Amino acid sequence: MPILQPIVDLVELLVRRGITDVVVSPGSRSAPLTLAVARNPGLRVRVMADERSAGFVALGMAQLSKRPVVLICTSGSAVYNLAPAVAEAFFQQIPLLLLTADRPHEWLHQQDGQTIDQVGIFGTHVKRSYDLPADYTHADSHWAINRSVNEAITLSQLTPPGPVHINVPIREPFYPSPDEVFRPGAVRVIETLPAELRLSTETWRRLLDDWDDSERILILVGQHVYSSALLTALRTISEEFNVPVLGEITANLGENGLFITHTDTILTQLTDEQAASLRPDLLITIGNSLLTRGLKTFFRRYPARQHWHVQPAPDRINDSFQRLTRLISAEPIAFLQQLVNDLDYQRFRQGMDDEPGEESEFFTAWQRADQQAAKRVYKLLTTANQSLTDWSAVQQVLTQLPVNSHLQLANSMPVRYANLCGLQENQRISVWANRGVSGIDGCLSTAVGAALQTDQLVTLVIGDVAFFYDRNALWSAPVPANLRIVLVNNDSGHIFRIIDGPGKQPELEPYFETPHGYTARRTAEDAGLLYHACREAQELTSLLPTFFAPSDKAQLLEITTDKYANQEQFQRYKASLSLPA
Amino acid sequence: MPILQPIVDLVELLVRRGITDVVVSPGSRSAPLTLAVARNPGLRVRVMADERSAGFVALGMAQLSKRPVVLICTSGSAVYNLAPAVAEAFFQQIPLLLLTADRPHEWLHQQDGQTIDQVGIFGTHVKRSYDLPADYTHADSHWAINRSVNEAITLSQLTPPGPVHINVPIREPFYPSPDEVFRPGAVRVIETLPAELRLSTETWRRLLDDWDDSERILILVGQHVYSSALLTALRTISEEFNVPVLGEITANLGENGLFITHTDTILTQLTDEQAASLRPDLLITIGNSLLTRGLKTFFRRYPARQHWHVQPAPDRINDSFQRLTRLISAEPIAFLQQLVNDLDYQRFRQGMDDEPGEESEFFTAWQRADQQAAKRVYKLLTTANQSLTDWSAVQQVLTQLPVNSHLQLANSMPVRYANLCGLQENQRISVWANRGVSGIDGCLSTAVGAALQTDQLVTLVIGDVAFFYDRNALWSAPVPANLRIVLVNNDSGHIFRIIDGPGKQPELEPYFETPHGYTARRTAEDAGLLYHACREAQELTSLLPTFFAPSDKAQLLEITTDKYANQEQFQRYKASLSLPA
Repeated sequence: MPILQPIVDLVELLVRRGITDVVVSPGSRSAPLTLAVARNPGLRVRVMADERSAGFVALGMAQLSKRPVVLICTSGSAVYNLAPAVAEAFFQQIPLLLLTADRPHEWLHQQDGQTIDQVGIFGTHVKRSYDLPADYTHADSHWAINRSVNEAITLSQLTPPGPVHINVPIREPFYPSPDEVFRPGAVRVIETLPAELRLSTETWRRLLDDWDDSERILILVGQHVYSSALLTALRTISEEFNVPVLGEITANLGENGLFITHTDTILTQLTDEQAASLRPDLLITIGNSLLTRGLKTFFRRYPARQHWHVQPAPDRINDSFQRLTRLISAEPIAFLQQLVNDLDYQRFRQGMDDEPGEESEFFTAWQRADQQAAKRVYKLLTTANQSLTDWSAVQQVLTQLPVNSHLQLANSMPVRYANLCGLQENQRISVWANRGVSGIDGCLSTAVGAALQTDQLVTLVIGDVAFFYDRNALWSAPVPANLRIVLVNNDSGHIFRIIDGPGKQPELEPYFETPHGYTARRTAEDAGLLYHACREAQELTSLLPTFFAPSDKAQLLEITTDKYANQEQFQRYKASLSLPA
Repeated sequence: MPILQPIVDLVELLVRRGITDVVVSPGSRSAPLTLAVARNPGLRVRVMADERSAGFVALGMAQLSKRPVVLICTSGSAVYNLAPAVAEAFFQQIPLLLLTADRPHEWLHQQDGQTIDQVGIFGTHVKRSYDLPADYTHADSHWAINRSVNEAITLSQLTPPGPVHINVPIREPFYPSPDEVFRPGAVRVIETLPAELRLSTETWRRLLDDWDDSERILILVGQHVYSSALLTALRTISEEFNVPVLGEITANLGENGLFITHTDTILTQLTDEQAASLRPDLLITIGNSLLTRGLKTFFRRYPARQHWHVQPAPDRINDSFQRLTRLISAEPIAFLQQLVNDLDYQRFRQGMDDEPGEESEFFTAWQRADQQAAKRVYKLLTTANQSLTDWSAVQQVLTQLPVNSHLQLANSMPVRYANLCGLQENQRISVWANRGVSGIDGCLSTAVGAALQTDQLVTLVIGDVAFFYDRNALWSAPVPANLRIVLVNNDSGHIFRIIDGPGKQPELEPYFETPHGYTARRTAEDAGLLYHACREAQELTSLLPTFFAPSDKAQLLEITTDKYANQEQFQRYKASLSLPA
């Protein structure tokens, strides 16, 4: 048997288990893995030189496809360059399989090149870490490799999904002879049949009783992928039962005259009286993290009598409002659908018609607040002077997004501005953002990865620090033509000027904002992107149709703004919140 | 007491303990640390947006100054971006203090932004990891912070030096009020008095007896910083006792007609007969890692009867030739100096004159082999066609380096080519290379860091993949004017074509070399560097004097070479090794 057979079989197992995409960073120790994936016709393999970018590209691919993507890198510090993406994937619950080549362990601390302590290197930021045997002479080694990889693939997808690490020590010689052909052997697939989550009838009865006892029920959606099934269920509940449904832009709700999407504007400055009118008895939360502080502060300061969080895997208590009373182990969509059914049946039994009831005061209070907030933002953006700001630029871009396309929002300000603007439900935009760890380190690479996984347009809105930080996303591999990058360049880490603390320190500019004077023109030229520059609102309006039209190259639109104008507008917004609408 | 007082005091302690340099990456959670270092007049603070670059910049500074440099970053994936530099620092034994801001731990897994599991995050790649208390109400917290930081500073410098992690959870509010002045309180310095390493008289007697019993003694120097004291001791031993002294370019020996510096050329293809003439009885090694495989293979295949390794901290057995018989806990220079003294005294007692003895056959064999190797390389480089190759470019650059300057050699090919070329002892060049982990990920940033710590010229020789990988070294902070970057651009990961395995695989180009088509012109323009391009040997000759002259901006010289010409030359070199000299 060829010495590399276990590696060839490992890769064949990936294919048989449904994996289709691999991102490889070049290396010599990892060559057997690279060759095995390159020679397997079942895999699409992309090559990225910078492992940090490779990690986030894979994350973007897995984020969009919801299926595990494989990363392959060589031994040594290459592995650590994957770590930022691994942490983001862990907290954002994105399935990744990290195949890291390693020297056989006996060479650690023997002054060999590219040799570090890779076993368990990602700590608690992977769901599990496997370390394959380096020697294949004993049959048990083959069995262990097959079983471990089967388990790792399953585990990466089990709720909650996440990254799984497989460390692969490889002994020399690790290059096949030039005439050697890779043929997978008998590869055992261990089928794993996952169970559905189901709450007992008794549990449902208790939930429905509590629901009935609650006057003011509110549903809050954290980050959640775009799902028309979710939107349908939420719409039904909201309409039929007068339940306000709240969500930020990352919740993928969209404005539709029903959902409450201007939470940040509503909640930032609130009198106790207003707060009392908005405070629920029963708060139900689904989804992942929230973007803005206003929401968290509100629900901590004005807690509901009961707070239910619906979360498929109940092994961790997510209690970010510090008032959780019930953790419900369920898939959010299935839970809401059954809730609708049971409530309808209950109403039917009780002889109530299924016309929507009169709107409750609580429901109306939220509706009114949302409408006022929308007006406030609209007024601010339309009555401002005509200079293009970060905010107004984002607003224009969001309005013009092609229907049915993808929107990637970078940390830290673009996602916040976009949240203040909002999207219409009928735009049918899928909104994505790296809010697992909320770093700026891989936003561009993530968008590249997303664009690789779809034929639809992927628009990234990104600030200058995040853009240049991650520009290796555009180097060493072709940039997909369906990617559109909207770069809002204010020549600094703008968030530090906007938030209260650093904005008031004399160290603001040199130690926080760090202006760099870069424009993206040369970066775009190097990467072969179509480049547009823009400073005026008028220009932007005329540029956007071309920018969003299909093209054979990716496009970058750099919008230069003035940090003082940005700051002034944001201050005006904050001041307006304390005025009557 | 102001709430941030413990942070202010922590920073004052750094200053009192002799720390002068800090590299900060902007962030909000880390703001108290940033403000405390910015406001302390005892510190030079540099700001770099990309934490990965920041890490390697700090490494370059500490490498050159041999004193701990502090890194400050915010919480979340920012911390993981330091990890590649941390691993390199650990294995290269460079002192770093990593101050990572964190949220208070109770917020982990509560869907808060920029919150990951930072306690012990660098695993076994730091010497120790501290986790400071988040609450300062109890006096013991202040005591613990002071004691831990005192210990961390000491530990980072204790033999072997290395990175030490201090995780700093910080509770809000973490911005001082605008009128708040930072005043250090009473800061306790715990002075640590390290002991010298000293071998007993009895131990020395045993060593000298064994020395006397050995006919063929050889000293091999691994990576070692430039040291005239070391050179003097080695020269004396070599001359007086007919001991061949071997070292690669990273050993900082230099060619002087005495030291054996062409080891790679000598040892790559050796008959058993030649090997027998070069095989020592007693092998003494000092320093860190070796660059080339030839040396390791030789000493594994033709082991000495005794192998002594001199290594200050004997807690790990570095046995990379698999034949170690004695680990000597000593500082290499002090050990060699005492060895010279004792041997001289012994000779004096034995009534021998201190004229050098007749050259032994063993010594002569190594000398002859080194001279032949030098000739071989010279012949290859001078009789080649006139097209500029990576190798001939490196050779020219090395020859023209200003006396008394610093040379940073990037992984993976530049350091190998430079090693084949060598330097003259009278050039007095300090040679540096990241051979702890041997990654390409931070070579440019390391050189930037080095240039920040000296007024002398720092020349980096780097390939295109390593250059573009790490180009954020040139972004977001001014590039020091004494930096010279020689970029050898063959549009690919050239090493894969040169080494045997991948060079023969059909996947070579798309999966290993990954050509990208970039030149550095635009990168240089963005960064405000003086840029020179060059394709011909003649051009290079005329460019170098200007390039090495003092200037008010850093300079980048891009040498474009052809990968096939590079390959052809290297193949010719390898073929020549099996021919008679």
